[in-house]
Amino acid sequence: MIIVMRHGAGKEALAEVKNRIREYGYKPHVIHGETRNVIGAIGDERGKSVLQALESLPGVESVVPILKPYKLASKEVKLQRTSVEIAPGVVVGGDQLIVMAGPCSVESQEQIIETAHAVKAAGATVLRGGAFKPRSSPYSFQGMEEEGLKLLALAREETGLPIVTEVVNPRDVDLVAKYADVMQVGARNVQNFALLKMLGKIDKPVLLKRGMATTIQEFLMSAEYILSEGNQRVMLCERGIRTFETATRNTLDISAIPVLREQTHLPIIIDPSHATGHASLVPSMCYASVAAGCDGLIVEVHPHPEVAASDGPQSLRPEVFTEMMAKLAEFAAVVGKTL
Amino acid sequence: MIIVMRHGAGKEALAEVKNRIREYGYKPHVIHGETRNVIGAIGDERGKSVLQALESLPGVESVVPILKPYKLASKEVKLQRTSVEIAPGVVVGGDQLIVMAGPCSVESQEQIIETAHAVKAAGATVLRGGAFKPRSSPYSFQGMEEEGLKLLALAREETGLPIVTEVVNPRDVDLVAKYADVMQVGARNVQNFALLKMLGKIDKPVLLKRGMATTIQEFLMSAEYILSEGNQRVMLCERGIRTFETATRNTLDISAIPVLREQTHLPIIIDPSHATGHASLVPSMCYASVAAGCDGLIVEVHPHPEVAASDGPQSLRPEVFTEMMAKLAEFAAVVGKTL
Amino acid sequence: MIIVMRHGAGKEALAEVKNRIREYGYKPHVIHGETRNVIGAIGDERGKSVLQALESLPGVESVVPILKPYKLASKEVKLQRTSVEIAPGVVVGGDQLIVMAGPCSVESQEQIIETAHAVKAAGATVLRGGAFKPRSSPYSFQGMEEEGLKLLALAREETGLPIVTEVVNPRDVDLVAKYADVMQVGARNVQNFALLKMLGKIDKPVLLKRGMATTIQEFLMSAEYILSEGNQRVMLCERGIRTFETATRNTLDISAIPVLREQTHLPIIIDPSHATGHASLVPSMCYASVAAGCDGLIVEVHPHPEVAASDGPQSLRPEVFTEMMAKLAEFAAVVGKTL
Amino acid sequence: MIIVMRHGAGKEALAEVKNRIREYGYKPHVIHGETRNVIGAIGDERGKSVLQALESLPGVESVVPILKPYKLASKEVKLQRTSVEIAPGVVVGGDQLIVMAGPCSVESQEQIIETAHAVKAAGATVLRGGAFKPRSSPYSFQGMEEEGLKLLALAREETGLPIVTEVVNPRDVDLVAKYADVMQVGARNVQNFALLKMLGKIDKPVLLKRGMATTIQEFLMSAEYILSEGNQRVMLCERGIRTFETATRNTLDISAIPVLREQTHLPIIIDPSHATGHASLVPSMCYASVAAGCDGLIVEVHPHPEVAASDGPQSLRPEVFTEMMAKLAEFAAVVGKTL
Repeated sequence: MIIVMRHGAGKEALAEVKNRIREYGYKPHVIHGETRNVIGAIGDERGKSVLQALESLPGVESVVPILKPYKLASKEVKLQRTSVEIAPGVVVGGDQLIVMAGPCSVESQEQIIETAHAVKAAGATVLRGGAFKPRSSPYSFQGMEEEGLKLLALAREETGLPIVTEVVNPRDVDLVAKYADVMQVGARNVQNFALLKMLGKIDKPVLLKRGMATTIQEFLMSAEYILSEGNQRVMLCERGIRTFETATRNTLDISAIPVLREQTHLPIIIDPSHATGHASLVPSMCYASVAAGCDGLIVEVHPHPEVAASDGPQSLRPEVFTEMMAKLAEFAAVVGKTL
Repeated sequence: MIIVMRHGAGKEALAEVKNRIREYGYKPHVIHGETRNVIGAIGDERGKSVLQALESLPGVESVVPILKPYKLASKEVKLQRTSVEIAPGVVVGGDQLIVMAGPCSVESQEQIIETAHAVKAAGATVLRGGAFKPRSSPYSFQGMEEEGLKLLALAREETGLPIVTEVVNPRDVDLVAKYADVMQVGARNVQNFALLKMLGKIDKPVLLKRGMATTIQEFLMSAEYILSEGNQRVMLCERGIRTFETATRNTLDISAIPVLREQTHLPIIIDPSHATGHASLVPSMCYASVAAGCDGLIVEVHPHPEVAASDGPQSLRPEVFTEMMAKLAEFAAVVGKTL
Repeated sequence: MIIVMRHGAGKEALAEVKNRIREYGYKPHVIHGETRNVIGAIGDERGKSVLQALESLPGVESVVPILKPYKLASKEVKLQRTSVEIAPGVVVGGDQLIVMAGPCSVESQEQIIETAHAVKAAGATVLRGGAFKPRSSPYSFQGMEEEGLKLLALAREETGLPIVTEVVNPRDVDLVAKYADVMQVGARNVQNFALLKMLGKIDKPVLLKRGMATTIQEFLMSAEYILSEGNQRVMLCERGIRTFETATRNTLDISAIPVLREQTHLPIIIDPSHATGHASLVPSMCYASVAAGCDGLIVEVHPHPEVAASDGPQSLRPEVFTEMMAKLAEFAAVVGKTL
Repeated sequence: MIIVMRHGAGKEALAEVKNRIREYGYKPHVIHGETRNVIGAIGDERGKSVLQALESLPGVESVVPILKPYKLASKEVKLQRTSVEIAPGVVVGGDQLIVMAGPCSVESQEQIIETAHAVKAAGATVLRGGAFKPRSSPYSFQGMEEEGLKLLALAREETGLPIVTEVVNPRDVDLVAKYADVMQVGARNVQNFALLKMLGKIDKPVLLKRGMATTIQEFLMSAEYILSEGNQRVMLCERGIRTFETATRNTLDISAIPVLREQTHLPIIIDPSHATGHASLVPSMCYASVAAGCDGLIVEVHPHPEVAASDGPQSLRPEVFTEMMAKLAEFAAVVGKTL
């Protein structure tokens, strides 16, 4: 932490800040500047947020954090990139480019089985599908719940594809874990800390989606909640942030890929479907994400988007998905990955 | 819903869209334009979101919703403004300007009792204080939990002030309801639908905070989740939205007050503390909010902000709060409210 | 500037940074931390932006500016608040609350004269009206240009109201200055530095609007362009920033008022018309702005908004404006200002 | 345009709106809905913005534009993609991937000549360099002006590379056009309509940068200003939009590439340097942009970023640029382009 003193703050003000810094267990170090003084607080970074309260002292202009607040998610603590095995032979964070595909919601046995076969045939290695749906309207379809989980399990049995599905209530963690290979935390729950803590205590990989207004630093702090409870198998998923632009549902922050690669060892998945909101924009965003260095993609595919219970406009038809996968393999080859 | 056809879309495309509209139970009405056709789908608005999926059809350019998706929160359904009684004689949404004040977190018996007396003396009518704290870092203080709730209840006993406190986990709704007069939903949980549904089933007023990236329409949809489960005592709280500006913690959207007054009958509370993040900015934002027509304020007050466990920089000292309340009474008088 | 070294950066890297700091004329001061070192660069703040380039050195993690980059706009250089006399007896920045009102565009002699009389009768002290219109579409009405300026001058002659009007091209500065009492710089030109420099050389007050995505710090740097050329009569105008919210045209950042009052001595004007985009939201935002401590308002008024050539939806009818002014006087009284 | 009437608006209100629509030269078409009526205004789309003023009528709830406001920039008017020849054999918008590279600012003859040779050797086909610099601070380096233009011309003579450079003042259009092969409009001037109109009248290609808070629709309207004056050689450049995220200088909106390809025939250039603000993030964003389908890149390269007069942190060293170009060729091959 750097504590910037006000222009004209006197010796007493400086002394008080130094005392407070010592009280909190840090060592103060003053730099006397031309127009104002600046104090560094030296010490271990965790818990330093209490120093922020020094901003309330009369002589203090601002308190500037210097270090990143996360630890276990950081490359300083763990240099080697993490790879997460989600099923035998399906490893996220290595040389494989993992593609998770399937409908937004599980709607029926026919729909999920048909889609599972189609995405598998096109080369997807994980099946996605929502059974608990967080919808902004209480009047929209809320998901098939446990019935949907059972249908996903059935699709896995039929195709061999591991399944990723969302959990929205801490209460349902055990139920979802009974069926799922990967537990998904949706964008709206990225700071549902009760849920994150519970996911930190189970032995299942977690796909953590970034929220619509979550900074990359906050995103890594949310991952830290899971990691610090013991579960190290966390995958980060960028799915678009909310901006002023309305041509797309959200703005896909592809630059988050190299930023995250610099700051964390955790694998990075991109969701171009929720980011763009329009099926026609999805393939080029998949290509771009792979070129930028992501470890995997999660893509919405529906056999009949025009009657989908949710997210129809952003779902690819199976034939478009198949075509896209062929092109994707070429981009994957350039970055040294196999599809 | 208005379905805009693509330039050059032919008769078959038009016929297919009309058929789909009828299948969903709406009546299609075509307007033949100069460069493209437009189809209105006539019918009851609830559930119309399924029509959005028509965007997947080849001849469709876009699907434009015309009606607001909420119903119970709307002034079309209930013209008279809602007033919420949170304790005998403490009514939000009428001629009283309600001020809720207290520390961010309950830290100790001494702290909460001292603050409660101070804010009561200054004219506050509700005591705020957090026992379950959603913190972005797992290493930050997470709140005193039930012990904190007990201290709040003790402060109520000593001062007579009703208490508002946050609930973050659906599991804790009954526990928190045992102590609290008002259940607060924090910004990070505005779309924690599992929590909202549970709060819709209890008999306690709810203070629902807008999320950092929640549109006003989504905010009202979140209120709709509570209302549609049966609980009509919902208060909306604007607490700043996330923008590019960093001089303030968030940007307080004061124009949300008149927008909400046009669209909903629910009372409106403003939280200038989390919005601005700096104590020195809080009083003028309180004055502005009252002038703009809010029904109440929720303000962080701490006897010693420089040692606060959380949110020190944005907490008012009791003497500043007292001074502000005197000025606030003058503004309240202009809008015909009493403090 | 604080230069944060990378974790593990060695002595040579540190030495190189120290040398570069000295080369740029600053004095390096190292703080040896537990996990990384931090170097303060001590010296006069102007021009320090060159230090930012040190981020390119291999051992450097980031370069953190500590001081504000503006000088003449700052309260550190000039403690006393600036007041700007725009006509005899019309002073912005003192005890008067200045209300500038009139149509978005000058459309005809009848329209501008009728409006000028109406706003004067209601208590406005300055007439606004656009002759050069920066419109996002080349097919929209672009203003009456010099003919419009002449009509504004005529309206001034008839009513005695000084006039504020926009200049969009550096070439037109002299032409507009021939007619206008206050030169307005629109939001789209807030970083049109060629225009700002020219306005810094003339002897007319300038009303500088904040851009849609301009931080408060950048806004003050734009003011600095005018001030540093010699013109000290600068008024700052907040007119809404662009956010994700679409219920309003922009989001009025009322908290900019207290932030600016802490950072600068320049007077502050609020434009609620462009900020909200809807006439029904304007009065409450005027009340809020006055309560928050602004020095003046600029409000769009049109005798027949439904046929206005531009900005009809956000223009007040004269009778609504008159009613609002009466209420505004009550709020002004609370803050010790007269209308 | 769709005019949505208020719930409960009567026959007179409807009749008035219909009359106004006819007065403006459009044909009204009413759809009688269950809860409210909706009126389509049928007619040519240009100039329809006047209909927006109908929102001021008492019975009107909102006015919803259906059509895009631009015409010449649209694929409806010109289906075939535009290709812009900026020098013999250097064509943007075809099978060539055009890479423009060079320093942010021209600083000296040695610097620009050295850089020109380096970027040419690496495969760049256009040299970039700023002579007129729009800087947020009046105290920062403002560019070498005409002297800089002469040095750019000298570099062109030595290397054969055509040059792109920025013009910031309408007054300087002829001067810059005397030297430049491509006229660049910076992000801050995207709505400097006086400048755009002048550039519409000259016979030089224009590289138009998107502003920090410019929607794609507004961006195309700015292009329309140039096109409608007669100059058809316009290239669009995405360079990052301003969001809440601070890990990058701006957020590169790569999804703008497919959106623009759907809406316009104009070529698309990406500037990853200003978008990210950090050299280490530039290569992956170049790869992603090419994969997403852009026509070219504009990249900052400086032989000694640590002493650059501007934008040092985001400038690539020549050896990094060279390495990147080799990889870029592989991605270009996948999309069928040559470097």
